[in-house]
Amino acid sequence: MPSNLNEFLKDFRMIIEEELSQNLQKLTIPKQLKDSMLYSVEAGGKRLRPILLLASYKAYDENYQKALSSSIALEMVHTYSLIHDDLPAMDDDNYRRGKLTNHKAFDEATAILAGDALLTYSFELIGKDTLLTNDEKVEMITNLSASSGPSGMVAGQFLDMDAENRTITLEELEQIHMLKTGKLLEFAIYAGAYLAGATKQQLENLKEYSFYLGLIFQVQDDILDITGDEEKLGKPVGSDEGNEKGTYPKLLGLDGAINKKKEYVNKAVAALEKADAHNSHLMALTEHFSNRDH
Amino acid sequence: MPSNLNEFLKDFRMIIEEELSQNLQKLTIPKQLKDSMLYSVEAGGKRLRPILLLASYKAYDENYQKALSSSIALEMVHTYSLIHDDLPAMDDDNYRRGKLTNHKAFDEATAILAGDALLTYSFELIGKDTLLTNDEKVEMITNLSASSGPSGMVAGQFLDMDAENRTITLEELEQIHMLKTGKLLEFAIYAGAYLAGATKQQLENLKEYSFYLGLIFQVQDDILDITGDEEKLGKPVGSDEGNEKGTYPKLLGLDGAINKKKEYVNKAVAALEKADAHNSHLMALTEHFSNRDH
Repeated sequence: MPSNLNEFLKDFRMIIEEELSQNLQKLTIPKQLKDSMLYSVEAGGKRLRPILLLASYKAYDENYQKALSSSIALEMVHTYSLIHDDLPAMDDDNYRRGKLTNHKAFDEATAILAGDALLTYSFELIGKDTLLTNDEKVEMITNLSASSGPSGMVAGQFLDMDAENRTITLEELEQIHMLKTGKLLEFAIYAGAYLAGATKQQLENLKEYSFYLGLIFQVQDDILDITGDEEKLGKPVGSDEGNEKGTYPKLLGLDGAINKKKEYVNKAVAALEKADAHNSHLMALTEHFSNRDH
Repeated sequence: MPSNLNEFLKDFRMIIEEELSQNLQKLTIPKQLKDSMLYSVEAGGKRLRPILLLASYKAYDENYQKALSSSIALEMVHTYSLIHDDLPAMDDDNYRRGKLTNHKAFDEATAILAGDALLTYSFELIGKDTLLTNDEKVEMITNLSASSGPSGMVAGQFLDMDAENRTITLEELEQIHMLKTGKLLEFAIYAGAYLAGATKQQLENLKEYSFYLGLIFQVQDDILDITGDEEKLGKPVGSDEGNEKGTYPKLLGLDGAINKKKEYVNKAVAALEKADAHNSHLMALTEHFSNRDH
């Protein structure tokens, strides 16, 4: 197992953030539109998705340059989804990561357009990447759009809203998380390994890994909403309690949720072993995200 | 010149509308999300963009099947832009083409997500088209995203909003139209001819044609806002008058605007001749859209 996960996270977060900013800074577009896109893209966050993409690449090949633009595009898609999700008509949030949300820092129309712009630009970015073959570009774009569109993330957002005012089953809850969060995580893992030349069998096993990773991520989110530190989280704890939103602790109790998470971690690790990726950063990342405190 | 433009328009509108509906109907996605996407996609309209794409294809090759999915994708991008443009935070319109706007027929959150879904799905659709090579897919996707993103249509939307409460010059007005409407028209013309195998020189001349076509379209829009028939337009005439929005008749007078349009038509026709496309439906379409009454 690579010895220093924290160094890997720090280095790659920096690489990703530089690439993100550079790619947007160089655009010749209306100033306030650019400012608004940059505002949300530079608002921090764990950079989980691009880091997973690069870690997945590095599990099969060291020279990760080839995967950079896809990882940046993925983070742009994630950022657009946060901007639209925070809008008054959606979750109506004023703060994210301790900063004003995009429509509060700018205005609602600008936030809608900044989200649209980030989503659209992500495909242009991959389409113009000089390090990828056209076959690789099509594979990236087709999978990214499928993961984030009406059969993927957008469906998850829709079902999540739809479920807010009623009680849902654990099965429905998992379906929502699989679509809303899991699909992009799955893309991250798939895209990195695909670009690095992983075999079909390895990609198949990684799909199973992604499935459990998505569930781990969500259970921990729900647990942190009860046991977390407001300052570290950048949002009030107990915010899920006020509404009827289904969460793992609500459905299984806190201990039940923690046990469920352990079960998922074991299954994720088994899948990583089958994919010959257990000596990569993905292994340490799984534990890391399972125990994260924000 | 092909004799029967009306028959071409009728036939191809039907083909396009069937393809649009079929492509969305077959998706396995949340019912209300699908209903909302279909609602706007099936709300009618001239289908100008996909028709231009197919007419441009047919100027160089008869067998237009290859261009169908790109034309459908283009209409989806256009439809998403209308849905978001109508939102309360943007133009705040209750009606479009005589029907309730998406957020009025459904709700605001659903309308935001239906727009996001149509935009994202358009790239998936091209990515999965079995009639295109990967080289062709990359060319389509890269150009469609560049035309509709922050350097294209989204920039136009942004500048249009930004200009609403101040007086702008003719130059600024043309810049806004070029981005907001012209970029997608340019894509339509380029994409069709490219897929049909037009030469670089022909594509270059078509670019000039698209530029004037975009301007013609906008001048006529402005003229119809003064001289049009409310019932045919499906919106009140004089709606531009109440705000400070710059229009050709405001800047040049009604006669000046009509003369400007004639000048643009002559330039468009000259460019079509240079592109060897003057015997195609594009020729008749140019006159048709220049004299349209809705």
